[in-house]
Amino acid sequence: MSKYTARQIHLVSRPAGMPTQDNFKLVELELNPPGKGQVLVKNRFMSVDPYMRGRMRAEGVYAAPYGLNEVMYGGAVGEVVESADSNLKAGDIVLNQAAWQDKFVADANTVARLTPFDPDQLSLYLGTLGMPGLTAYVGLLKYGEPKEGETVFVSAASGAVGANVCQIAKLKGCRVIGSVGSDAKAQWLKDECGVDVVINYKTCGDLSKALAEAAPDGIDVYFENVGGDHLQAALNVMNPFGRIAACGMIGSYNNAEPAPGPNNLMLIVGKKIRINGFIVSDHADRRAKFLEDMVGWIKEGKIKSRETVVEGLDHAVDAFLGLFSGDNFGKMVVKI
Amino acid sequence: MSKYTARQIHLVSRPAGMPTQDNFKLVELELNPPGKGQVLVKNRFMSVDPYMRGRMRAEGVYAAPYGLNEVMYGGAVGEVVESADSNLKAGDIVLNQAAWQDKFVADANTVARLTPFDPDQLSLYLGTLGMPGLTAYVGLLKYGEPKEGETVFVSAASGAVGANVCQIAKLKGCRVIGSVGSDAKAQWLKDECGVDVVINYKTCGDLSKALAEAAPDGIDVYFENVGGDHLQAALNVMNPFGRIAACGMIGSYNNAEPAPGPNNLMLIVGKKIRINGFIVSDHADRRAKFLEDMVGWIKEGKIKSRETVVEGLDHAVDAFLGLFSGDNFGKMVVKI
Repeated sequence: MSKYTARQIHLVSRPAGMPTQDNFKLVELELNPPGKGQVLVKNRFMSVDPYMRGRMRAEGVYAAPYGLNEVMYGGAVGEVVESADSNLKAGDIVLNQAAWQDKFVADANTVARLTPFDPDQLSLYLGTLGMPGLTAYVGLLKYGEPKEGETVFVSAASGAVGANVCQIAKLKGCRVIGSVGSDAKAQWLKDECGVDVVINYKTCGDLSKALAEAAPDGIDVYFENVGGDHLQAALNVMNPFGRIAACGMIGSYNNAEPAPGPNNLMLIVGKKIRINGFIVSDHADRRAKFLEDMVGWIKEGKIKSRETVVEGLDHAVDAFLGLFSGDNFGKMVVKI
Repeated sequence: MSKYTARQIHLVSRPAGMPTQDNFKLVELELNPPGKGQVLVKNRFMSVDPYMRGRMRAEGVYAAPYGLNEVMYGGAVGEVVESADSNLKAGDIVLNQAAWQDKFVADANTVARLTPFDPDQLSLYLGTLGMPGLTAYVGLLKYGEPKEGETVFVSAASGAVGANVCQIAKLKGCRVIGSVGSDAKAQWLKDECGVDVVINYKTCGDLSKALAEAAPDGIDVYFENVGGDHLQAALNVMNPFGRIAACGMIGSYNNAEPAPGPNNLMLIVGKKIRINGFIVSDHADRRAKFLEDMVGWIKEGKIKSRETVVEGLDHAVDAFLGLFSGDNFGKMVVKI
């Protein structure tokens, strides 16, 4: 195995319903040494994210679908091993979109040098300081527009995005209600993140009823990560002129057949609700301010991060599948 | 029968599913002559509107529900018959919210004197120049934000609201696609209102397919009056950053049990769609500008109105029920 031997995970068939290991294949290959203007990067951490499920479909919802028998892509943090570009040198830490592989050669301008906030917390740039953190920041502040004293409901509240939404909402003076799938996650959100009420949707019974009890004054903002019964409950309990930031609907990503939506959408009219779907890649203009704010909040101890770290590229598929069974506690990352 | 004998239509039971005549009762009563500051008004036209169905439910969605064994309310145009107020005199035409009755006595400040654009078209103030017209104007312009050259899809397109949406969108330089339930309505929209393509949803087969064919470049704005399969089709064919002005969902108003929603709501995220529910009563601040614009457009022949006029208060319930079977062609009004 040479310095240029790389391992990649390819999508070899499109999942029908919940993906399985058979949809993926670990492939070994020899890279060419970097040509002029290129770098060889060894990834140290890669991200697995729910949005990747959408890219496994033939008809890409967000963007072009992953190609079959090709390496998938996604966020990763790596280290430059060899450089043939004047702007990067061996040892530089770079953020890149070339996940699902342990090494790659690419044009230097396709990776971004990081000056890490903390060299021992590189993976934060895949979570709280990365795409999920910016998603939380933009979705809540731009589309949720929470005002001090308002009530914010967050689904998948302990996830990579959700936990940041909860904590930013607390910073903005809101009452925060989260929904999660385990008591341990609920406890962490309450104890460490200051979330006011956490609902375990698996054990609470009727979710609308549980939410109405948790929010006697109604909710003003719903940060949507789940869809289905969560959206239905949010509409039921929402106040007039409530705002929904629609970030994702993980509850439906693995449906082989599309499932019907909530039966109370007429409340959108009656309650004069605004819903904004959004995708973080449209909001790169807010990244600088986000990083400034978020690093500040982390240093002040106002934003906490929790990660589940899976070891080894050969377990990346397990990590990805774990997102849908709730195995992750906070941000799921793969250490390579 | 004296000058003070009035007839009212009362709601006597709450409909389960489609309302029937049995839910209503015609009641005759003697009014007191107007006291100081009051007027006796004889209504000339009253409005029946789909939103009234919502007010027949025990739990009001928009506003307080209609009381049982009480007269319902809604928009009407009447004539002052007797006045004990210095600001109004017999013969004045007044817009009021005291429909479902032929005469009433009320404080003068609860009615608004009209200077009709055309005394022979008083009923326009219940349609194109009234609540439905303002609904179309606010919903399309404030929430749909159509830009010249964009494609606008309007459901219930020949209705009191829809026909105005279509024509305002054409005035703004948009390509307009309407959906209706009869070929005669389709023809009128094309011939008289300049709508580019009209789909008869009852005969078109798969609505998403029909809409995709009608809008090869996708739709940018959807004016939502129907819900269900119409919303599903609009989401399927919508372009990224599309806007939905959610005005009503008449398809569900008479459901005894709530019906599930579209199965493709995840497209809200993927296409970065904005949905705004709205109710016209929140937008009285735009009424003056609306009237100025709309009267101008009518005079220039740019906005046409079509009405279905039902004769007699004793047929008001028929007129109301006709809204849900598509009996109305344009604005449904009752001449009293």
